[in-house]
Amino acid sequence: MVQADNSKYPPSVVYDVLMLLAIFASIVPLMFRGNYQIFQVMEITAVLIFIVDYLFRWYTAGLAAEHNNLSAYIKYPFTFMAIIDLLSILPGLSLINNSFKLLRITRLLRITRVLKLIRYSKHLVVLLAVLKKECNVLLSVLALAIGYIFITALIMFNSDMYFENFFDALYWATTTLTTVGYGDIFPHTNLGRLISMLSALFGVAIIALPSGIITASYLEELKRQHRSDSR
Amino acid sequence: MVQADNSKYPPSVVYDVLMLLAIFASIVPLMFRGNYQIFQVMEITAVLIFIVDYLFRWYTAGLAAEHNNLSAYIKYPFTFMAIIDLLSILPGLSLINNSFKLLRITRLLRITRVLKLIRYSKHLVVLLAVLKKECNVLLSVLALAIGYIFITALIMFNSDMYFENFFDALYWATTTLTTVGYGDIFPHTNLGRLISMLSALFGVAIIALPSGIITASYLEELKRQHRSDSR
Amino acid sequence: MVQADNSKYPPSVVYDVLMLLAIFASIVPLMFRGNYQIFQVMEITAVLIFIVDYLFRWYTAGLAAEHNNLSAYIKYPFTFMAIIDLLSILPGLSLINNSFKLLRITRLLRITRVLKLIRYSKHLVVLLAVLKKECNVLLSVLALAIGYIFITALIMFNSDMYFENFFDALYWATTTLTTVGYGDIFPHTNLGRLISMLSALFGVAIIALPSGIITASYLEELKRQHRSDSR
Amino acid sequence: MVQADNSKYPPSVVYDVLMLLAIFASIVPLMFRGNYQIFQVMEITAVLIFIVDYLFRWYTAGLAAEHNNLSAYIKYPFTFMAIIDLLSILPGLSLINNSFKLLRITRLLRITRVLKLIRYSKHLVVLLAVLKKECNVLLSVLALAIGYIFITALIMFNSDMYFENFFDALYWATTTLTTVGYGDIFPHTNLGRLISMLSALFGVAIIALPSGIITASYLEELKRQHRSDSR
Repeated sequence: MVQADNSKYPPSVVYDVLMLLAIFASIVPLMFRGNYQIFQVMEITAVLIFIVDYLFRWYTAGLAAEHNNLSAYIKYPFTFMAIIDLLSILPGLSLINNSFKLLRITRLLRITRVLKLIRYSKHLVVLLAVLKKECNVLLSVLALAIGYIFITALIMFNSDMYFENFFDALYWATTTLTTVGYGDIFPHTNLGRLISMLSALFGVAIIALPSGIITASYLEELKRQHRSDSR
Repeated sequence: MVQADNSKYPPSVVYDVLMLLAIFASIVPLMFRGNYQIFQVMEITAVLIFIVDYLFRWYTAGLAAEHNNLSAYIKYPFTFMAIIDLLSILPGLSLINNSFKLLRITRLLRITRVLKLIRYSKHLVVLLAVLKKECNVLLSVLALAIGYIFITALIMFNSDMYFENFFDALYWATTTLTTVGYGDIFPHTNLGRLISMLSALFGVAIIALPSGIITASYLEELKRQHRSDSR
Repeated sequence: MVQADNSKYPPSVVYDVLMLLAIFASIVPLMFRGNYQIFQVMEITAVLIFIVDYLFRWYTAGLAAEHNNLSAYIKYPFTFMAIIDLLSILPGLSLINNSFKLLRITRLLRITRVLKLIRYSKHLVVLLAVLKKECNVLLSVLALAIGYIFITALIMFNSDMYFENFFDALYWATTTLTTVGYGDIFPHTNLGRLISMLSALFGVAIIALPSGIITASYLEELKRQHRSDSR
Repeated sequence: MVQADNSKYPPSVVYDVLMLLAIFASIVPLMFRGNYQIFQVMEITAVLIFIVDYLFRWYTAGLAAEHNNLSAYIKYPFTFMAIIDLLSILPGLSLINNSFKLLRITRLLRITRVLKLIRYSKHLVVLLAVLKKECNVLLSVLALAIGYIFITALIMFNSDMYFENFFDALYWATTTLTTVGYGDIFPHTNLGRLISMLSALFGVAIIALPSGIITASYLEELKRQHRSDSR
C-alpha cells in the first residue's frame, strides 16, 4: 500500500527539491512592495519550471493508467491538482507577454502556487483529510454563521446610525461573531451596545459548533484506527 | 414520512422562487440609508405577496388536516411559523396606511422575514434542530454567563472610577467574557486591570461549556444515526 | 431524596420572595455612582432582613439535625453558606454604625450577596456542580495558564521597551492568551510582535484544555444518567 | 515505581525550598527596569547555588545508576533537564565575568530558569504529559495554522496597500486567526475587510482542531484510568 502510494512521486528527490525552490522563488516577489529586476528573473525561471512540470505530470498521468491510456490523457487537465497547476502558470505568462495587462488580478491567483506545497507533506494531508470529510457539515455551519451575521448586521444597521453603510455592519458582525473584535468599528449608542452584547453571547453557541463537529470526527477517526490496529 | 414532509410545499417550484424573490425584495431596502421610490414599490409588492401567501397557507393548513378541519383553521394562526409570517406582514402595512407612524420600531420587526428563508433549506434545519435540542442547557449556560457578567461588572464598577455608568461595566464584562474585546472600553487603573485579568481567566471555563454541550450532543446524534443505519 | 432536599426551604414561598427582594434591594445601590437617601433606606431594610434570616437559618440548622443538636449549632456558622451570609451582613453594619469607616473595601464584599441567588435556582446548581467536579483539574489548567502568562510576560518585558512595568506585561500576556485583545497595550517593536504571535499561537493549546476537560466531564455525566435511567 | 520516582529528590526538604528561593531570587531582577545593587547580589548568590546544584545533580546521576557508572556521568549533561540547568547558569556568568558583554541576549535565556519550577509540581507534570503526548499532532495543526496565516497574509499584503511590509501582514493574520485582534493593525479598504472577514470565518475551523485533539486525548486518558482502576 505504502509502495503504491510512493509510486506517484518521481524516483529522484532532486526533482522535488527543485520544485520546492521554484515555488518559493515565485512567491518571494509577492512579499515585497518594490519591483526589482531580480524578481522578474526568478519569476520567469519559476514559470518555465512550472510549465515543464505540468507537461511532465500530464505525460506520467497517462503512463500510470497503462490501459485506458487515451482517456487518462483527456481526464488529467480536469483534475483538481491539474487545474491548480495551470492557475499557477497563468499569471506568470502575463509577465513574459506583457499584452495581458491583468497583473493586478492575477497577482492574487499566483498564491494558488502555495497549495502545491501540500503535496510534499504527508502529515498535513491527513489533517486536511479530516477537515475535508467534515467539509459539508462545516459549510452548513458557515451558512448558519453567515445567516446569523446577516441578521445581526441588519438589526445593527437599522438601530445604530454610526454605521455608514451595510458593509460596515456586516464587517462588524463578523468580527463580533468570530470574537476577533479589532475595535476599528463598534457601536456608539446604548441600543447598539445592547445588540452587540446579545449578538456576542448567542454567537458563542454557533462558534462552538465547528469545535463539536471536529472533536466528534477526530474521535471516530481514532476509534477506526484502533479497530484496524487490533485486527 | 418524507412524502408527508414534502406535502406542505406547493407542487409548483415557481411558487417557492417567487416567495424567495419577495423576501429578498422586502429586505433589500433595509440595507440602505436612503428612502428611494423603487424601494417603496418593492415593499408594497412584497407585502401583497406575503398577505396572499399567509391566506393560502392558512387555507391549505385546514385541507391537510382533512378531518378535524375546523380546529385546524383555528389553531393555525397560533403556530410559530404563522406568527412569524404575520409579523413579517405587519410592518409593511404601516407603509400602505401611513396612520400607524410606528415605522422606527417596526423596521426591526421586518427582519423576522429573513427567518422565512430557513423553510427553504433542509440541511440548516438539521443543525438548528441540534441547537434546539440543547436549547435548555444552553440557556442555563447563558444564565450562568449573565450572572458571571453581572458580578464582574458590579466588582469592576465599584473598583474602577473610569466606568461612568453600570451599563458601561456590563458592556465591558460581556466583551471580556466572550473574548471579543473591541477596546472601546477597558479598565484604566491597575486594580481594574487585575479584575479584568481574573475575569478573563475564570471566564474561559464558562465559555468552554457550550462547546462541551454541543460536542456531546453531536456525538450522540452520530451514534443514533449509526445504530439506525446498521439495522 | 427530593423531599429531604426540599426540607431546607421554608414552607412559605413568601419567605423566598421576600429574601430575593432584599437581595435585589441591597444590590441596586451598587449599580449607581450617586449616594441617594432612598438607597440608605433600602440598605438598612435589607441588612435587617439578612440578620433575621441569618439567625433563623442558624436556629433551623439545629432543629434539622434533631439529635446531636448542640454540635449542629456550633458547626453551622462555619459552613460555606453561613460564612457568605455573614459576609453579606457585615458591610451593611458599617452603614448603621458609622464608626467602622471601612466602606470602600466592604463595598466589594457586599457583592457576595449575589451568590445567595444561586440557592434559588435548581438548574444552575447542576451546571455549577459539573464545574465544581472538575474544579481541581481546571485549577491546574489555571496554574499552567498563569505560568505561561508569567513566562510570556517576562520574555516580552525584557524584549520590548514599550512596556513600562512588569504588571503591564502581565496584563498584555493575559489579554493575549485569553484572546480578548483590548488593544490598549500591544507590542511596538518587531521583536515584540514576533513574541506576541508565538505567544498567541502556542496559547491556543492551553485555552483548548478547559474545553476538553469540560466536554469529557459532560459526556461522562450524560452516560451516567443514561445508565441510571435504563435500570 | 513511586519510590523510585521519589529517589531523585534529595531527602532534605530544606534543599528544595532553598532551590525555589534561588530561582525566585534570579527571576525578580527581570521584573524591573532599573539596575539596583541588591539585584546583582541576588543574581550572584543564585548563580552560585545553581552551579553547586548542577554539580550535585551530576554527581547523584552517576550514583543512582550504580552499575554502568561511567556512562551515566557522560550521558547526564546531554539530558533535557541538564541542558536547561546549564542555560540557567550561563547568563549569570556574564555578570560575574564582565568580558562576555552578551547581556542583552542572555537576559532572555535566563527565563529558562522558570522551567525549573515544573520539577516541583506533580499535578502540572500530568497535564504537560497530555500536551506532550499530542505534541506531534498539535505541531501539525501549528504547521497548518502557519500555512493559513502565510496565505492569508500574502493575499492581504497584495490587496490592501495599508500594510507597509509583509511582517505587518503576517502579524495581522496571526492576531486574526487566533481571534486576539488587538486593533493596532487592521485593513482599511473594503477589499481588505472582505478578506479579513473570510479569513476569520474559515479560520474558526483551524482553531477548533486543537480543541478536538485535546478532548479526544483527555477522554482516552480518562478511559485508560477507569480500566486500570476497575482491575
